[in-house]
Amino acid sequence: MPLESYFPFWPALSSTQRDMLEQAAGMRVYKKGESVHQGGADCIGLLIVQSGQLRVYALSEEGKEITLYRLLERDVCLFSASCILRGMQAELWVEAAADTQAVHIPAGIYQKLMQASAPVANYTNELMADRLSNVMWLLDQVLYKRMDARLAAFLIEESELGQSRRVALTHEAIARHLGTAREVVTRMLKYLQAEGAVTLSRGDVTLLDLEKLTQIAEGSIR
Amino acid sequence: MPLESYFPFWPALSSTQRDMLEQAAGMRVYKKGESVHQGGADCIGLLIVQSGQLRVYALSEEGKEITLYRLLERDVCLFSASCILRGMQAELWVEAAADTQAVHIPAGIYQKLMQASAPVANYTNELMADRLSNVMWLLDQVLYKRMDARLAAFLIEESELGQSRRVALTHEAIARHLGTAREVVTRMLKYLQAEGAVTLSRGDVTLLDLEKLTQIAEGSIR
Repeated sequence: MPLESYFPFWPALSSTQRDMLEQAAGMRVYKKGESVHQGGADCIGLLIVQSGQLRVYALSEEGKEITLYRLLERDVCLFSASCILRGMQAELWVEAAADTQAVHIPAGIYQKLMQASAPVANYTNELMADRLSNVMWLLDQVLYKRMDARLAAFLIEESELGQSRRVALTHEAIARHLGTAREVVTRMLKYLQAEGAVTLSRGDVTLLDLEKLTQIAEGSIR
Repeated sequence: MPLESYFPFWPALSSTQRDMLEQAAGMRVYKKGESVHQGGADCIGLLIVQSGQLRVYALSEEGKEITLYRLLERDVCLFSASCILRGMQAELWVEAAADTQAVHIPAGIYQKLMQASAPVANYTNELMADRLSNVMWLLDQVLYKRMDARLAAFLIEESELGQSRRVALTHEAIARHLGTAREVVTRMLKYLQAEGAVTLSRGDVTLLDLEKLTQIAEGSIR
């Protein structure tokens, strides 16, 4: 797929800028679980997901994780180029949640374009506003949503992403997504199983009663 | 103070753009406690704090508040112009935390400048990245910091902002800042008082032992 189809600012670029972008663009391939971006440690550039899934997460001082949002096909990962974003002090981490292929735009090239082109800079703004909106939503979830509701919503989302009732994640992995302890997840999953909403086996969770799970996710069952 | 001193992109503007900005700029005055921006309900524009303090907060579905960050002298409030920020879906609220005077730039004017000028668009990026960093920091606090530590840190910050050991806030107001319940704040304050870190009277909290409070804020006293 041509770069043109990913970037709404394409018509505004000069042919020199288009050439620069096209020549610099490359392909990156990541295996499921592979680390893509490690906070302030690297600044690879933008990544446009062609296939697969990237997981963007925060890492606490003590190594605890919470998933901030996922990037799916056609989504653009901005914070893998965080060094070019003035004012950005938070460190975000990115890993491949599935085998992933992505178009790569080197940080320096994209920075040049941002500095020269208002449409590119505004597009970057739009991405950042979208990501801020995601983080605001997460903050609201963390503050006001009970853990069983968050877990139920997470399982439904994972099931939809994987297009399967079987969610192949360990309790530990789920804990890292939700920013909680493995023991809490285990306890909650057992509760959901007792409610008939899911069934548990080693290394996965199978959704049984989507309607019930949805009600729990919406907080309408105590 | 001239607009020039607030905006680092000033040298990059044409004289037409500078004139447009200067002619459109106005002054806004807010009394302490006055509402400045109410999520998606209005889009007044940018506000540059000349004196006083703006409080930017999130409001949950049930009307619970949490302070996201404060804007002090020379800080620029961006989300009072949220309608011009494509991709911004979260609703932020702004109120005057103290009697405040601010330079006002109408949303439409600033949007024109963003669209025409890469330096203005990039400056907006920088503001947004800074705000995202603030929200990320808050998420980390909410997830991993005990409430007594958060409260202690908050009291120290308020004391510094007001340049006084006496923090004139009710327990309810503190709860709205921290995104918790009034009862939790009362319990925590009583604990801090029992520890000799603060003393409580009607409608305020006086800091007694800054060193102890700092230790609690850093989580080094259980």
